[in-house]
Amino acid sequence: MGIPTRFDWQRLQQFIQRLFMAAGVPEHNAFLVAESLVQANLRGVDSHGVVRTPIYLARIRRKMVDPNAEITVVRESEGTALVDGGNNFGAVVGVRATQIAIDKAKRAGAAFVGVKRSNHFGTGAYYALKAIEQKMMLMVMSNASQTMPPTGGVRPFIGTNPLAVGVPAGRAVPFLLDMATSVVARGKIIVAAQKGQPIPLGWAVDRHGNPTTDPEAALEGAVLPVGGAKGYGISLMIDILCGVLTGAGFGRYVNNMYENWEEPQNVGHVFIAVDISRFMPLERFEARMEQYIREIKQEPKAPGVEEILIPGEIEHRRTLELMKHGIELPEKLAEELDAIGREYGLRLADAAY
Amino acid sequence: MGIPTRFDWQRLQQFIQRLFMAAGVPEHNAFLVAESLVQANLRGVDSHGVVRTPIYLARIRRKMVDPNAEITVVRESEGTALVDGGNNFGAVVGVRATQIAIDKAKRAGAAFVGVKRSNHFGTGAYYALKAIEQKMMLMVMSNASQTMPPTGGVRPFIGTNPLAVGVPAGRAVPFLLDMATSVVARGKIIVAAQKGQPIPLGWAVDRHGNPTTDPEAALEGAVLPVGGAKGYGISLMIDILCGVLTGAGFGRYVNNMYENWEEPQNVGHVFIAVDISRFMPLERFEARMEQYIREIKQEPKAPGVEEILIPGEIEHRRTLELMKHGIELPEKLAEELDAIGREYGLRLADAAY
Repeated sequence: MGIPTRFDWQRLQQFIQRLFMAAGVPEHNAFLVAESLVQANLRGVDSHGVVRTPIYLARIRRKMVDPNAEITVVRESEGTALVDGGNNFGAVVGVRATQIAIDKAKRAGAAFVGVKRSNHFGTGAYYALKAIEQKMMLMVMSNASQTMPPTGGVRPFIGTNPLAVGVPAGRAVPFLLDMATSVVARGKIIVAAQKGQPIPLGWAVDRHGNPTTDPEAALEGAVLPVGGAKGYGISLMIDILCGVLTGAGFGRYVNNMYENWEEPQNVGHVFIAVDISRFMPLERFEARMEQYIREIKQEPKAPGVEEILIPGEIEHRRTLELMKHGIELPEKLAEELDAIGREYGLRLADAAY
Repeated sequence: MGIPTRFDWQRLQQFIQRLFMAAGVPEHNAFLVAESLVQANLRGVDSHGVVRTPIYLARIRRKMVDPNAEITVVRESEGTALVDGGNNFGAVVGVRATQIAIDKAKRAGAAFVGVKRSNHFGTGAYYALKAIEQKMMLMVMSNASQTMPPTGGVRPFIGTNPLAVGVPAGRAVPFLLDMATSVVARGKIIVAAQKGQPIPLGWAVDRHGNPTTDPEAALEGAVLPVGGAKGYGISLMIDILCGVLTGAGFGRYVNNMYENWEEPQNVGHVFIAVDISRFMPLERFEARMEQYIREIKQEPKAPGVEEILIPGEIEHRRTLELMKHGIELPEKLAEELDAIGREYGLRLADAAY
């Protein structure tokens, strides 16, 4: 009998949290990192889920991440803050910066918070959902290590720099756009490589700049920006805001967490929070969102299409489903997590569904 | 001997300004509208240039735009403002809202300004450049009348809702991204239709939802979002910020300026200004921008590519070139503008290069 591969999300999250605590991460920080990873699995975004646990732990062990670092506000004004993440985990830094942005927006109406000296922060949706819980609108951006060539270039220069936006929508599922500026998230190519499956043509080029369907060749090469020059332009914009403006790395100075074991990543993020009630009463806004979403969903559908979807809707349903039926992990990953757990006297089987 | 087709940009701008003044637009407002149109031509974005003069004039004549309307701040806080455009021209409303955003950002560090009851505002670049002149960072969004189907839909529901971002870059050409969330700007299809040229497959569908290369069929059908669901998501985000949040129209409630002669457009915009000096000294930021741009441009190039370009670079060069050598207009458009001018005793020939 092998290892279980289906897990109760809460117990899986506890297992991951305990792993991080055993590795020296303070309890609350470990909670945030575990929450961000398991939430990604719940949303069906496995590329940003617990599959990242081993690399996160390796970054601590090799002293590339400081899970005890203080997060400080270096500069601030009514509507802005510059946060120094101190090289703590992205999830820990990001949650703090999100709350600073929300608190400032509650006072000034809107706030723009920049972050330097952070790390890979998981999904942007994680922060956007924290804002939605507080009925705030949040725009989230992060730069990332080099994976995409500029338009006209051949080798990686910009990251797949994601953009996420969360908007409360009353009784409707919240609007939650969370996208990489690549044709696909690099994580999806990692998943394909793990599964040994080919990737569609147009997702990536190999290291010579040739189109490829081989995920391994793609990982050595470059993912392409979405929509050509437009995706390239948005990715540059995000790198400028998150990196050039904050003092974090940008372009080649954002280090790859899988390849660089000499220096911290120095990732930068931006969080823009808006207090909806400065524009109209929240109830009226939510009614307008409900109406908007209803009207889109009532549009005539293309042949073969059953439903017109709003960004975040599939992930919301997936979460409800997996909370009920458990999170399924690839056997290889379950074995890896269990092996790591045993080093600390933790058994993954305790989280089995 | 026919009408001249090449024009000195300053005299062309004066001619356009005088046309608007003759049509009842106050001098300064007429200046802004003319400046926004001629600047688009200078930047090579002919789709948003003086080709829009006849429709703008028709909107005044049919009382669909009120060029004398007061623009008012309805609500405000340190970091936000809600601006009521009073149904004045988009360029006039947009310039005012841009300045409000910049002034607030100079005090609070950042500002988020929403606008309702506005009209077609030309290019987003126009406002971003005004911020760059003041060494401020500006993000600009606008919703627009329905031209694109949602992912999975068949008929237009969302606009090609543009996003523009301007960033000063020291001695380098400023970073100036200005993009529609469609595969191409609808204006480019209008230009193709005027020139009688086919459009590439993948730009648009006809009114039955079939792919088409016929620009006329495309104008009756729908332009497609860039990058599929990602462009759809960004376009929705812009409609939510510009329309749902501000009280402007959204979705089907943003009226088409060419087709609806019963009601104002009720376009909404958003301007997000950031004071760079709240994050680091401007000089240091500009040096980082120069370095970033230099490093991208030094990247190895794909076969056949002579230069890696930064968003806004082509348009900047085009402006310098056309300021020197004149703006060339299609003969049909020159004749149309001259005919309108003659109604007011103005001769387009006076603007000839």
